[in-house]
Amino acid sequence: MDGRKPPSGTFASIRPEIAGLPESGILTVANYGREREGLLPLWFGEGDLPTPDFISEAAVRALRDGHTFYTYQRGIPPLREALSDYLHRLYGTEVAVDRITVTSSGMQAIMLTMQALIDPGDELVVVTPVWPNVYSAARIMGGVVRAVPMEAADGRWRLDPDRLFAACGPRTRAVFINSPSNPTGWIMPREDMVRVVEFARARGLWIIADEVYGRFVYDRGPGAVAPSFLEIIGPDDRLIVVNTFSKNWSMTGWRIGWMVAPAELGAAIENLVQFNTSGLPAFLQYGAVTALTEGEAAVAALVERCRGGRDIVCDRLAGIDGLSVAKPEGAFYLFFGVEGEADSIALAKRLIDEAGVGLAPGSAFGAGGEGYLRLCFAGSHAHLTKAMDRLVPILERIAR
Amino acid sequence: MDGRKPPSGTFASIRPEIAGLPESGILTVANYGREREGLLPLWFGEGDLPTPDFISEAAVRALRDGHTFYTYQRGIPPLREALSDYLHRLYGTEVAVDRITVTSSGMQAIMLTMQALIDPGDELVVVTPVWPNVYSAARIMGGVVRAVPMEAADGRWRLDPDRLFAACGPRTRAVFINSPSNPTGWIMPREDMVRVVEFARARGLWIIADEVYGRFVYDRGPGAVAPSFLEIIGPDDRLIVVNTFSKNWSMTGWRIGWMVAPAELGAAIENLVQFNTSGLPAFLQYGAVTALTEGEAAVAALVERCRGGRDIVCDRLAGIDGLSVAKPEGAFYLFFGVEGEADSIALAKRLIDEAGVGLAPGSAFGAGGEGYLRLCFAGSHAHLTKAMDRLVPILERIAR
Repeated sequence: MDGRKPPSGTFASIRPEIAGLPESGILTVANYGREREGLLPLWFGEGDLPTPDFISEAAVRALRDGHTFYTYQRGIPPLREALSDYLHRLYGTEVAVDRITVTSSGMQAIMLTMQALIDPGDELVVVTPVWPNVYSAARIMGGVVRAVPMEAADGRWRLDPDRLFAACGPRTRAVFINSPSNPTGWIMPREDMVRVVEFARARGLWIIADEVYGRFVYDRGPGAVAPSFLEIIGPDDRLIVVNTFSKNWSMTGWRIGWMVAPAELGAAIENLVQFNTSGLPAFLQYGAVTALTEGEAAVAALVERCRGGRDIVCDRLAGIDGLSVAKPEGAFYLFFGVEGEADSIALAKRLIDEAGVGLAPGSAFGAGGEGYLRLCFAGSHAHLTKAMDRLVPILERIAR
Repeated sequence: MDGRKPPSGTFASIRPEIAGLPESGILTVANYGREREGLLPLWFGEGDLPTPDFISEAAVRALRDGHTFYTYQRGIPPLREALSDYLHRLYGTEVAVDRITVTSSGMQAIMLTMQALIDPGDELVVVTPVWPNVYSAARIMGGVVRAVPMEAADGRWRLDPDRLFAACGPRTRAVFINSPSNPTGWIMPREDMVRVVEFARARGLWIIADEVYGRFVYDRGPGAVAPSFLEIIGPDDRLIVVNTFSKNWSMTGWRIGWMVAPAELGAAIENLVQFNTSGLPAFLQYGAVTALTEGEAAVAALVERCRGGRDIVCDRLAGIDGLSVAKPEGAFYLFFGVEGEADSIALAKRLIDEAGVGLAPGSAFGAGGEGYLRLCFAGSHAHLTKAMDRLVPILERIAR
């Protein structure tokens, strides 16, 4: 042995699926612009409010009480019970505790689902544009993603369910539906959900429902929630619903999510948690319990704030010729098209340079996203107004 | 469509690798005994001290300061810098910040490593007995584990490196070495590490080094640390070192670990973090910074306490005929054999019933573990003494 370095670099010796994972287009743009002085960043999916104190202080109490040991892999019992109660309150349907697992983020709920379902070469059919991490989680497991783009017409986003069904082939294991949608704000109508359930049952497919933005619903009256697959499907159907504490309670930085799955999978999911991260901090979970039991006013206020933010950005952008602005029904993003624009990353960089505003490029969200930009309106109204003051004149110039 | 349930149950429709993941034998026994009144549990790998206040209060301050947003995927810069300094202090070798990634537990560092390296059918060669989660993480990625058992002779655990090399074949991607070892306390000698590095270089293999117990070293003088692959290998070699805050600073419940890998893999690892959990709470990471910068006295006190615990259990068990007691050089477990015992799960259950003491069955730790029991001596001396008072008379009866 002569101690020389190996003949090829280390990067060449990892799995091609991993070496080939694309950098998020959102990060490409954010890395381009994040150090600019005075930049108004609207590219990420979070608002500008820290977690409410009453939630944080519940975690502080639990930490000081010494809840710093290994804990239940599927979440502390009070949190799983509080989630069961919460879902019952929202949807009027029983979701038994043994169907619920607390996870280290909604992202982890998706990754554990991919680990459970996707063998190399298996296909995942995904409604797009979509949060790009879904693609990558499937690819890590050797999966193949088939995209079914929704379409914007007459100021609304729509999906023809028959196109979703037509994309499912013999290697399809699951369909992935994010409603309300990040980035488009589209909400799948309940009658379409019923059709998807019937199709999935007939074909033995899994439905993976990302319902993270289910509370962020506009124009349907106060306290409205988006339709949920939990309302439609039985406890033993092949449904996995993923969700998170991040958005409803301004807890993006806590990394706590949950998943609902058939009870029969409980032991398998417990194993997956064990072998991925071995649970999440018990003391943080006490904060999450408080979010569920005492956080409804905070959710209502945040949704109301986002509704106002939506109106600010839609009102200012809707009148610009050459922009395609479908007012979002839900979530907290405006996904707007710029006519004739074929390179949304270049456009996002130009808006950083010329307007000092950071938006996410539509191409990052997969099929149907190129030519669009995503703007998060979860921040303060003053901040959004200032961003519009900068953006509007430049977009008026660009979108001609 | 008639709305009937799918023809087979949901459990039958997940990946066979996932449906077939074994329940941890440790949990089998813990579930059998955990509700027993007065039971003394020594089965898990943690002590009985909550996290020191000075660490918890640093996290509380960061939480109250509003560090509740999305953060750096590879860890906040002050934590990565503090880890680089810490490793330099311990080993006298430069470990550049761009080689370091903070993870949501040492377990996650292992899982991310498997995702990066293991294609279906790839082999991982593992020195056993070993913490069983390593097997399962490889299996989730479709990997195959080849076990190379160490042997106990003359009161010491040993591994013949040539047996490790002989187990490596054309499909082998990596060797996994946990030193100091959970469960045996074995420490790989530095000269053997050098041989492993030479072999791995020649064959293009990765070394995955689990150095979680590197601070828990006995009989080598105060402040001694176990040899580390970081001292031997260059920054571009195919080495991944996994570690955790759990043991050194009594932070099992915090779920914070780290990994050191070639800098060239930084972007790929960042992607893996993004698509698994998207980082971990920034406010907790400030607690981890404080553990590194102000926690040396706490580590020293904990190691000293474990040394005393080791002496209590070894002194009491060494004299029993029919027990094989190799005094551990490191980590905080005694892994002792019971002559003629072919079912360590049954034996562990019997000790719950007859002694009211909870031990982990050796069979849970893979090849070479059957017939052994693992006892964690990280708890209080009073607790350990009481456990010995109960165990000794019964083991004297059994081990004849």
